[in-house]
Amino acid sequence: MHIRVINPNTTLSMTAKIDAAARSVASDGTKIVSVGPELGPASIEGHYDEALAVPGLLAEIAKGEIDGADGYVIACFGDPGLLAAREIATGPVLGIAEAAMHAASMVATGFSVVTTLERTCVIAEQLVQNYGMTRHCRRIRAADVAVLELEAPGSSARQRILDECRAALAEDRSGAIVLGCAGMTDLCDDLSRELGVPVIDGVAVAVKMVEALVSLGLRTSKHGDLAFPIAKAGGWRGENA
Amino acid sequence: MHIRVINPNTTLSMTAKIDAAARSVASDGTKIVSVGPELGPASIEGHYDEALAVPGLLAEIAKGEIDGADGYVIACFGDPGLLAAREIATGPVLGIAEAAMHAASMVATGFSVVTTLERTCVIAEQLVQNYGMTRHCRRIRAADVAVLELEAPGSSARQRILDECRAALAEDRSGAIVLGCAGMTDLCDDLSRELGVPVIDGVAVAVKMVEALVSLGLRTSKHGDLAFPIAKAGGWRGENA
Amino acid sequence: MHIRVINPNTTLSMTAKIDAAARSVASDGTKIVSVGPELGPASIEGHYDEALAVPGLLAEIAKGEIDGADGYVIACFGDPGLLAAREIATGPVLGIAEAAMHAASMVATGFSVVTTLERTCVIAEQLVQNYGMTRHCRRIRAADVAVLELEAPGSSARQRILDECRAALAEDRSGAIVLGCAGMTDLCDDLSRELGVPVIDGVAVAVKMVEALVSLGLRTSKHGDLAFPIAKAGGWRGENA
Amino acid sequence: MHIRVINPNTTLSMTAKIDAAARSVASDGTKIVSVGPELGPASIEGHYDEALAVPGLLAEIAKGEIDGADGYVIACFGDPGLLAAREIATGPVLGIAEAAMHAASMVATGFSVVTTLERTCVIAEQLVQNYGMTRHCRRIRAADVAVLELEAPGSSARQRILDECRAALAEDRSGAIVLGCAGMTDLCDDLSRELGVPVIDGVAVAVKMVEALVSLGLRTSKHGDLAFPIAKAGGWRGENA
Amino acid sequence: MHIRVINPNTTLSMTAKIDAAARSVASDGTKIVSVGPELGPASIEGHYDEALAVPGLLAEIAKGEIDGADGYVIACFGDPGLLAAREIATGPVLGIAEAAMHAASMVATGFSVVTTLERTCVIAEQLVQNYGMTRHCRRIRAADVAVLELEAPGSSARQRILDECRAALAEDRSGAIVLGCAGMTDLCDDLSRELGVPVIDGVAVAVKMVEALVSLGLRTSKHGDLAFPIAKAGGWRGENA
Amino acid sequence: MHIRVINPNTTLSMTAKIDAAARSVASDGTKIVSVGPELGPASIEGHYDEALAVPGLLAEIAKGEIDGADGYVIACFGDPGLLAAREIATGPVLGIAEAAMHAASMVATGFSVVTTLERTCVIAEQLVQNYGMTRHCRRIRAADVAVLELEAPGSSARQRILDECRAALAEDRSGAIVLGCAGMTDLCDDLSRELGVPVIDGVAVAVKMVEALVSLGLRTSKHGDLAFPIAKAGGWRGENA
Repeated sequence: MHIRVINPNTTLSMTAKIDAAARSVASDGTKIVSVGPELGPASIEGHYDEALAVPGLLAEIAKGEIDGADGYVIACFGDPGLLAAREIATGPVLGIAEAAMHAASMVATGFSVVTTLERTCVIAEQLVQNYGMTRHCRRIRAADVAVLELEAPGSSARQRILDECRAALAEDRSGAIVLGCAGMTDLCDDLSRELGVPVIDGVAVAVKMVEALVSLGLRTSKHGDLAFPIAKAGGWRGENA
Repeated sequence: MHIRVINPNTTLSMTAKIDAAARSVASDGTKIVSVGPELGPASIEGHYDEALAVPGLLAEIAKGEIDGADGYVIACFGDPGLLAAREIATGPVLGIAEAAMHAASMVATGFSVVTTLERTCVIAEQLVQNYGMTRHCRRIRAADVAVLELEAPGSSARQRILDECRAALAEDRSGAIVLGCAGMTDLCDDLSRELGVPVIDGVAVAVKMVEALVSLGLRTSKHGDLAFPIAKAGGWRGENA
Repeated sequence: MHIRVINPNTTLSMTAKIDAAARSVASDGTKIVSVGPELGPASIEGHYDEALAVPGLLAEIAKGEIDGADGYVIACFGDPGLLAAREIATGPVLGIAEAAMHAASMVATGFSVVTTLERTCVIAEQLVQNYGMTRHCRRIRAADVAVLELEAPGSSARQRILDECRAALAEDRSGAIVLGCAGMTDLCDDLSRELGVPVIDGVAVAVKMVEALVSLGLRTSKHGDLAFPIAKAGGWRGENA
Repeated sequence: MHIRVINPNTTLSMTAKIDAAARSVASDGTKIVSVGPELGPASIEGHYDEALAVPGLLAEIAKGEIDGADGYVIACFGDPGLLAAREIATGPVLGIAEAAMHAASMVATGFSVVTTLERTCVIAEQLVQNYGMTRHCRRIRAADVAVLELEAPGSSARQRILDECRAALAEDRSGAIVLGCAGMTDLCDDLSRELGVPVIDGVAVAVKMVEALVSLGLRTSKHGDLAFPIAKAGGWRGENA
Repeated sequence: MHIRVINPNTTLSMTAKIDAAARSVASDGTKIVSVGPELGPASIEGHYDEALAVPGLLAEIAKGEIDGADGYVIACFGDPGLLAAREIATGPVLGIAEAAMHAASMVATGFSVVTTLERTCVIAEQLVQNYGMTRHCRRIRAADVAVLELEAPGSSARQRILDECRAALAEDRSGAIVLGCAGMTDLCDDLSRELGVPVIDGVAVAVKMVEALVSLGLRTSKHGDLAFPIAKAGGWRGENA
Repeated sequence: MHIRVINPNTTLSMTAKIDAAARSVASDGTKIVSVGPELGPASIEGHYDEALAVPGLLAEIAKGEIDGADGYVIACFGDPGLLAAREIATGPVLGIAEAAMHAASMVATGFSVVTTLERTCVIAEQLVQNYGMTRHCRRIRAADVAVLELEAPGSSARQRILDECRAALAEDRSGAIVLGCAGMTDLCDDLSRELGVPVIDGVAVAVKMVEALVSLGLRTSKHGDLAFPIAKAGGWRGENA
């Protein structure tokens, strides 16, 4: 099985970290191909960054189709371009927020999301609505950590995230923590140990869920809005007048 | 990995069918133990049947804990006793309706449930609410098939189910079908082929999702309402006066 | 009129307290028969306790049908087994949480629930959803009181409940208090007096509402999912192969 | 106990019909005082009619307070002025739509409303939202009957209502019927017999529920938005400049 | 274009203030006619005040129809009588809460309402529900200011409102403030400057939105529940027996 | 005032049509600048088309900021890139679906959307959710018309749209029609005349609402998630390792 894991930003150290996380959980016989777009934002911290990252992400899906990928993971917690990606993919495509929230709802009746910056919380709120997680997601918390701080050795980011997780367990009526950024993937094991509750990294869960869907022969439905895009004249302005 | 698959009714042919479905999708190295309660209803077709099936189901979870089960599947589409089972289980416990609906939402933006009798549709509606699937589940349809008809060779049940699936795809703005009974597990492949859309059998999906969660070290949270039950005097009336 | 009030746990002192509350509000001409199951948990403080209490509860409904009961009250705030009970009952069946929340919504635009242990709050939240009370129920609060503490003379339970009620009125934009445990039934009058707002005990309300429904000739609908259960082979595993 | 039943329109035959319905279900010892405003619309069939009926209705509440009424019923299915009435009432005030929908949710998991004119369905929809009945109310149906047709001997109104009820039971996944107009109160018994399901007349239910609340000492909360109105200069324009 | 702005209370200084606000934003060629009812409450601070204000308000709509008004603004934050007014109006009718919330949702993903008294917050909550603003409206806050304090020179009302706005921006994840009373219209510019975020006065917005709708030829739909009221015998009790 | 109207597809005839619609409703003193991206899809009929159109759209917003645009209209019914556009815009940005739905909710209690292809209905459904229009939007209907058919003289598109509008008014309990494609802007007047109800073209409404917001000094909030994007290293993969 061939799973293409796409980091939609252009920070190579983050792609490498995501790749390590994906490989560490993949089954024998699963080939993980972790990629990032050629061009795009170094990190995704808002609606605008997301929008700019999507075309590069979709190009990576298109390459995956040529390479015979069986499924895809979008490794950014905003799940940018998810439905567009599904339109052009044959196999299943999962976002890491989607995968993490679904998994969290299976091991706890309530969970809290701990993410990076306050300004991205609105994006997570919209995903909670889209995925039907309003009853399960008790609260979305920002640890006030910029995405690329997670790449910086010696930053206090890890401590601030741990503090926010502790506050979540004390105040939110939550039984599990969802990590709200692909760049937190390497913190998952330590946080689990320290907190004693399920701490869920969407990269790992998404890889396993794509494996599950692919092994069952489940592909993206091509009946309805996720059918392949309608072929049309594209190109430069006015060519289709 | 050891997964215990529990058919909460007492019909052995159905347990055997579920066992075959579970084994056919389990990974190498996963041991499937399919069981049913000693005593209980022959089929589950309403709130009352569900309620009576739950203690036997919970006894099977308790046995699984002793036997070292890593995770559990409740193989009845009403997901009876799910939260109670999670309280006494160490590993993850998935209901097949839960697993199927989550998977369906990953491969289509809308799905229809095709179940057995009209009277069970209310149960499925409540699950749709509980799992946050109101935006994804477009409609719940009854094929007017009693559960045990699915065990009867030569019945017209299969045809009625196929007809209802076709109606769903034509009328419901759905891109996938969720099979609404564990007893339909053996119809999944044929229906998929005939309909050309993802047809989702919760037994198979639940087994793969439990595998996924267990392989990631995710267990049922013991922080909050799913903590092990409070030890207390049980027993006969009045012993605790 | 004959109303059967069922305490689903096996603590006799609690059944006696519930019986006193029910009798004290019943109309002349209403016979109250308060019972508890032969076997089951001493108190209900979670999903598991609920599940185990349900078969005994349903047996009490079945006995009521034989004895000619006109209606039923399930005297536990989680309303365990409510829909299953309705399937086998001819007359109306009310849960005390259901009755209390409906009544509260009639005398205040918002109410708070004050219940026992934090871990049961999730159960109350689900009832709020099921009964459509999300706009009326402002908050569910735990007083951190175990159910059986309510039976212990000299415990500080009453004070903690009063404190929590006061906090609710100060902070929740609520005009009424719903007591979240059948074991609080004897506190209702005192709390009402001290707080100066409607304090609602579900046992009392449920008795009056069942009286109301019965006197109007309203019975559980037997059209649809609450029809009597489908007769089927029950019994031991494999008898229905 | 003294219950004031207010028909907010000025059609005396309808007040008489409502009075008969209320008396026929009232307990011994309950005094029913049925009244209508001095001035106002002959029937209420829209937002505008409702708005004009409210001041007269509130005047009747005020008179009830002077007369020592223990509780009130607003006998129009739009429940006009309900919260305003509660502000000035000491005892409980129930609308007949509110009472009927709550009762219906206790005897069936789903119900349909059968009302008069299509244009009033929007009003009923808003009540369904306000009372949290979106999961219980399956559909609101208009029988295309003007309110005052219900007063006309020999009209076909009764037949059209019966037909609509039958359609509801066949198509809506409903187990009970809520009658959507106070003027249908005299049809309830016949419709119940013919349809074989609970048919719910809000006038009767509201009387019994007010009796229940009053007998329990439950009054309208005066803590919060239902507190008595703030005393203020009223009167003619500019007096308060 | 002729827009009639109706202050539903009888305080002339407030009508004058509203008139000034409306005129200051009206386009050249828009005639603003600001009026209040002859008789009614001096301020609107609850359900009861609202109900009493509505007939006078509707009379002003009726006069507007005779005078050839093209559209209407209801200048009270509870939007009293909105749907009734639409029934009798040919042109569009906007409430200031409605207009303000819609505008706020266009310039921020979340907003807070800052209103007068705690007891009116429930009214605002209902409007949030009715207008579908539950995702946009983060919180409704009372500054504990009586409506007529806003008319009193030298009161501390302005400071308390400013403080509450600051708290909203710090705590509510809101990017804009909606002023929750027509009497705050003169504070809007100062608050905007001091807070540095959009502060939205419904009077101004409603005038501009009515201008927009009228200029596009959009009038109140007369198809369905907003059709002109059904002509009927009105008048004194019993005339329509 | 300078309003930039952006057609996110590259079909010049459609940009011209949109420009004509915008100019025909703009106030004196409003300069309309209608543009389309240099490169992108010829029409937008799915999630993928939307995603590809967004960067070109955002480039047009950026140009507008340099040119001193006071506000923006995104003239595609899916409102692609709306929140991203708001992040980089100083003035207000409105989508035509957003503007149309808000306006429709002001002139009718329910409306239907009539759009082009079935596959785009899911996009409209998501907007209905995002804008809180679930209670107002009764149904989303596809007329089975490809976007570019609307540009083809002599096509039957207009007739099919009219038929679908008529069905909506007969079946959906709707009082107004929202046109679900910018390419339908030239049909609005004729449809209004033929149907006799408000027919709402988002292009026209959005222009007027942007005018309204700008004239009131309301700009996009820069407090929170719509603040200008965080400056960061962009560029080619790996530059930010």
